[in-house]
Amino acid sequence: MPANILKPGHLPRQVVIREMGLRDGLQSVATIVPTEAKRAWILAAYEAGEREIEVGSFVPAHLLPQLADTAEVLAYAQTLPGLKATVLVPNLKGAQRALAADAEGLLVPLSASHAHSLANLRKPPDDVVAEIARIRAERDAAGARTRIEVGMSTAFGCTIQGHVDPAEVVRLVQAVLDAGVDTVSLADTVGYADPAMVADLFERVLRVAGDRLVCGHFHDTRGLAVANVCAAMQLGITRFDASIGGIGGCPHAPGASGNVATEDLAYLMASMDVETGLDIGRLLALRERVAGWLAGETLHGTLWRAGLPKTLQPQPEEALS
Amino acid sequence: MPANILKPGHLPRQVVIREMGLRDGLQSVATIVPTEAKRAWILAAYEAGEREIEVGSFVPAHLLPQLADTAEVLAYAQTLPGLKATVLVPNLKGAQRALAADAEGLLVPLSASHAHSLANLRKPPDDVVAEIARIRAERDAAGARTRIEVGMSTAFGCTIQGHVDPAEVVRLVQAVLDAGVDTVSLADTVGYADPAMVADLFERVLRVAGDRLVCGHFHDTRGLAVANVCAAMQLGITRFDASIGGIGGCPHAPGASGNVATEDLAYLMASMDVETGLDIGRLLALRERVAGWLAGETLHGTLWRAGLPKTLQPQPEEALS
Repeated sequence: MPANILKPGHLPRQVVIREMGLRDGLQSVATIVPTEAKRAWILAAYEAGEREIEVGSFVPAHLLPQLADTAEVLAYAQTLPGLKATVLVPNLKGAQRALAADAEGLLVPLSASHAHSLANLRKPPDDVVAEIARIRAERDAAGARTRIEVGMSTAFGCTIQGHVDPAEVVRLVQAVLDAGVDTVSLADTVGYADPAMVADLFERVLRVAGDRLVCGHFHDTRGLAVANVCAAMQLGITRFDASIGGIGGCPHAPGASGNVATEDLAYLMASMDVETGLDIGRLLALRERVAGWLAGETLHGTLWRAGLPKTLQPQPEEALS
Repeated sequence: MPANILKPGHLPRQVVIREMGLRDGLQSVATIVPTEAKRAWILAAYEAGEREIEVGSFVPAHLLPQLADTAEVLAYAQTLPGLKATVLVPNLKGAQRALAADAEGLLVPLSASHAHSLANLRKPPDDVVAEIARIRAERDAAGARTRIEVGMSTAFGCTIQGHVDPAEVVRLVQAVLDAGVDTVSLADTVGYADPAMVADLFERVLRVAGDRLVCGHFHDTRGLAVANVCAAMQLGITRFDASIGGIGGCPHAPGASGNVATEDLAYLMASMDVETGLDIGRLLALRERVAGWLAGETLHGTLWRAGLPKTLQPQPEEALS
């Protein structure tokens, strides 16, 4: 019988679920959530146990008015002890804002798909690599502590270009490591990945990046995100991006919808006895509030409909005595 | 780095997806689908490549009027060359009807949960084991070819009882093997399983049943069914139950909804280059017809919303030349 490390006793003790709802989620919906609501959202996520939250993007406000208040939202998040608040930046200009704001981390998206890179950032991937080198130099010059992560988007395929060569992903990962980034993550931006592709690509990238490959980012467009998380976890990956209510997508990837839902991943981990520090009841309550702030938008995920299994529900006090 | 058999080259070459929609699906919806539509459904499923279909149940018509025409539907399915048509039977009486009809196979559900067994069949599990022995004796006496499978339901937990002891599942599997059944399957009737539980329980049952453990039956109540299929596949399981449109459930398991969707599993396998013989386009067309026959009922699944990735879409003729 083949080895299977998803068995109890072979699982990681702990996994970090990193919240993407306020960035990847909100960038793909038309509704503009007021800053006050974003503060309430972050506080509720924090109280539910979340400790890594991507709070917005430093992009021109006319491009993403939903995220125009990122500086203010970031400043609020920075008041919560132990919360790692990160921002997405598409270029040096955005990075300068992140460094000036003393963000814990900045994420630069780099499309492995040439066509997606042109559509999303109006530059071919290698120009983005050059920009990333400039971001690293800028950080060094500023003496800032902000960690630089590259999110390799469309790493498993692209709605515009179709197939993306895994060798190109590996080449670009090597290039950004050479350019001095701290960490990389692999993103299935459009929901094309399957567990076999995840196992293959994560293994290839682990060979060049080692423990600097820190995160898997899976969209649930075609229902495979949870299985993809499990496949990456089998290779030792212990951080996953997710959005409360499964909100998210990419404006330049038609048909793409939704990061895997935070509450669904939290349930998966709780069921397998993998610590996340998350309170699922509070996450489900937050999901309801987000649904209110995004009235008219489609939320995703599965757990909220059925609720927790009886076996995972909090026991009444008397039953424990 | 740990071994990971979901990698390309380590996957099974072929997997069978067994259709449950006409039985597990229809038993849980109020709508009564006319026999003529069921015939069209079976033909369309057959033309989409399905070769194993559970067509109904031999239970008293007043209990499940939706399945009252099972004999007629079975007779039609038996006219299609190479189609293995099976039926569910809850007891000896139902089995006698299946044997008389020369069904390819009969499935006897056996709840590992004592409480669910009482609610569903009004008997404790060991009384069902005794009935299964009588069914085997009846087949021997009749000289029939009908294969006997036991579906171990609530094998991963139960909405009534909560926790189900894996050791009890193993004990009951051993008991029905001793009673002479041909094959067993493990069913997550209420969507409580996670990949770690699947890896653990399938491994335990494989130790007593070997290749007589032939199938995994996962409900997608909490979004983990696809991951559970992958976990079972890693242990060498190559047959999975599914329902077109994710329809299904259990009338005695409140909150339980939907087998994993046939078309979603077909996509998973196609993406991983595992043969199923299924035509996903035809399955999606059938899903639409089923949605029509079940107007007002909730269908599930994910693929139908986003469609196939560009990388899996049929290429135009000219592109191939």
